[in-house]
Amino acid sequence: MTKIDFRSLANHSVRNLTPYQPGKPIEELERELGITSSIKLASNENPLGPSHKVILAAQEALQNTHFYPDGGCYELKQALSKFLSVSPEQITVGNGSENILELIVKAYLHKNDTAVLSQYAFLTIPILLQSYGVIANVVPAKNWGHDIHSMVAAIDEKTRVLFLVNPNNPTGTFINEKDFITLMQSIPPHVLVVVDEAYSEYISNSECPNTLKYLSQYPNLVITRTFSKAYGLAALRLGYSISSPEIADILNRSRLPFNVNTIAAKAACIALEDQNHVRNSIALNNQGMQQYKEGLCKLSLDYIPSICNFITIDVNDGIIAYQKLLHEGVIVRHLKAYGMPKHIRVTIGTPQQNERFLRAIQQVLA
Amino acid sequence: MTKIDFRSLANHSVRNLTPYQPGKPIEELERELGITSSIKLASNENPLGPSHKVILAAQEALQNTHFYPDGGCYELKQALSKFLSVSPEQITVGNGSENILELIVKAYLHKNDTAVLSQYAFLTIPILLQSYGVIANVVPAKNWGHDIHSMVAAIDEKTRVLFLVNPNNPTGTFINEKDFITLMQSIPPHVLVVVDEAYSEYISNSECPNTLKYLSQYPNLVITRTFSKAYGLAALRLGYSISSPEIADILNRSRLPFNVNTIAAKAACIALEDQNHVRNSIALNNQGMQQYKEGLCKLSLDYIPSICNFITIDVNDGIIAYQKLLHEGVIVRHLKAYGMPKHIRVTIGTPQQNERFLRAIQQVLA
Repeated sequence: MTKIDFRSLANHSVRNLTPYQPGKPIEELERELGITSSIKLASNENPLGPSHKVILAAQEALQNTHFYPDGGCYELKQALSKFLSVSPEQITVGNGSENILELIVKAYLHKNDTAVLSQYAFLTIPILLQSYGVIANVVPAKNWGHDIHSMVAAIDEKTRVLFLVNPNNPTGTFINEKDFITLMQSIPPHVLVVVDEAYSEYISNSECPNTLKYLSQYPNLVITRTFSKAYGLAALRLGYSISSPEIADILNRSRLPFNVNTIAAKAACIALEDQNHVRNSIALNNQGMQQYKEGLCKLSLDYIPSICNFITIDVNDGIIAYQKLLHEGVIVRHLKAYGMPKHIRVTIGTPQQNERFLRAIQQVLA
Repeated sequence: MTKIDFRSLANHSVRNLTPYQPGKPIEELERELGITSSIKLASNENPLGPSHKVILAAQEALQNTHFYPDGGCYELKQALSKFLSVSPEQITVGNGSENILELIVKAYLHKNDTAVLSQYAFLTIPILLQSYGVIANVVPAKNWGHDIHSMVAAIDEKTRVLFLVNPNNPTGTFINEKDFITLMQSIPPHVLVVVDEAYSEYISNSECPNTLKYLSQYPNLVITRTFSKAYGLAALRLGYSISSPEIADILNRSRLPFNVNTIAAKAACIALEDQNHVRNSIALNNQGMQQYKEGLCKLSLDYIPSICNFITIDVNDGIIAYQKLLHEGVIVRHLKAYGMPKHIRVTIGTPQQNERFLRAIQQVLA
């Protein structure tokens, strides 16, 4: 019998994928290097953890793990609807916002269609596009951020979706309201504009648009958000989108019947209620950002100004710095896959963690 | 401005989908009818719930919900590898086995390819195929079960995957080992055979094949399993597949980076260790199956012999019986979407729940 190669039988778009490389888990590092007490500043996780109220409610919800989730996420959609002042029919809930992004690609892009996105945009997006055989029109960045005018110009007759990441990961840059309006006014009305707002809770800069208020005016607008960052629920996987009810209906058809687990949906409801925890998380982040800026200034290290819970630093050789930091028990992110070989991205942690990073990077670069 | 119809802009395969209709959640029924104390025998959930050890471990794991999951599911793959005597490289972990089924469709089927499956097979499979524009060659069932010879005959030059559901949901039927071997020997070696074994833990009939032992002989074999049934973890979403390392590599490329939540992965590890709970669950199920058979015999109701944790009963008009049972506070499943309008499918519950169903169905059909 001839030996069949089941790799080559897979669809071209899937088998040539380079999977997304997530931040290294602490357990993995410690297993590999035989070290302990390491810290992870690699995945922009909330150093405060989730609200204590969320943990208690989720623990209680675990008693009923034998029941399937409510596929419609009734309770969470009600809560989000109230919190965001949108209708429940505008909401799609997913297994992390990466799930929502995939639903959009699956529902609205054919093989060989094009999608427009910026250089340095969150890497999960181009990988998803590739896995569906969609062609990415990647527009060179301007000052590390999205170049809105060039993005509009990159739309061609095969373009069905334009992605914005705002603020952008891994650069921490943002699109201002004027540029956002220009974009919405300039693009063909049948092209979906998907704004990934994973870091929206951290935004304090008033020039960054509140995109929610443009939903009624622009039915082609889709906003994605997550409970993985400021809400501290990354382990549970909960993201959602807000769009027109028509688009939400399509995304809901496109999803698996039980894409969201019960514990995540319950935890998100309680997390929404505890805005005090979110405020504390943001205050800690603002304080940490100041600590980083001062520390990096002392070390004469350049960084990209960020409005998020991370900062991207020019260390000349990101991979070497990343590897040396691992040996110091500090996990950050190198940005080779983004074509940013000089930079590392560091999450803003607790004051102690930030201090530990600053000491470690000084030592590593010495 | 012309009004754009964002439903019609969606891909044809997605926008015409009739989504899978899950079993009605208890909360939804009680909300709609204003009743209380209802029971759900609609989703083949384990009436004992999860192992207590699982709940405790999952509760503890909730302390770290701010960390992203380990996308590689290292610990769970090690545990499954040991439990099943396969290598970790053969395992793909998913957000429920429905996620694994979708990864297979995404990776191995192009638009307008064909996939072979049986009439009455688990409905998520044809819905998934449709959502990717794949053509389903549906083979008429034989005595409510898979007709293996006709399924082999239904393979055409565009067929890349053949799906078996064994035992099958919603009929409870199974493919015997002889037929399984015939199938594996007869089909073209490049066609993947995907065996969905969601109910494998309940199998006591020795004629039903242990497909795991055929993996080394047939590199085109993929087995999917779940923690949603006998392990009682449906709320958490955890399924997996066992295949050749080559196919597992492709499925892993096809998945989202964080498709499995931390709590589910942890819970599954502990659930595997507590086989005593699984044995108790199966014993309860066997006892309940006997209770149903005797009860249905007394009521002179025909049913399809089942080796699972549910039984499918001919009640003449399944939708009317389903609706009347709802008003009795008993949620079962009608099978209209399966083209089985005379039947309802009922999960085997606790002795008290089974008794309640038997009394309710007697009343409803009187």
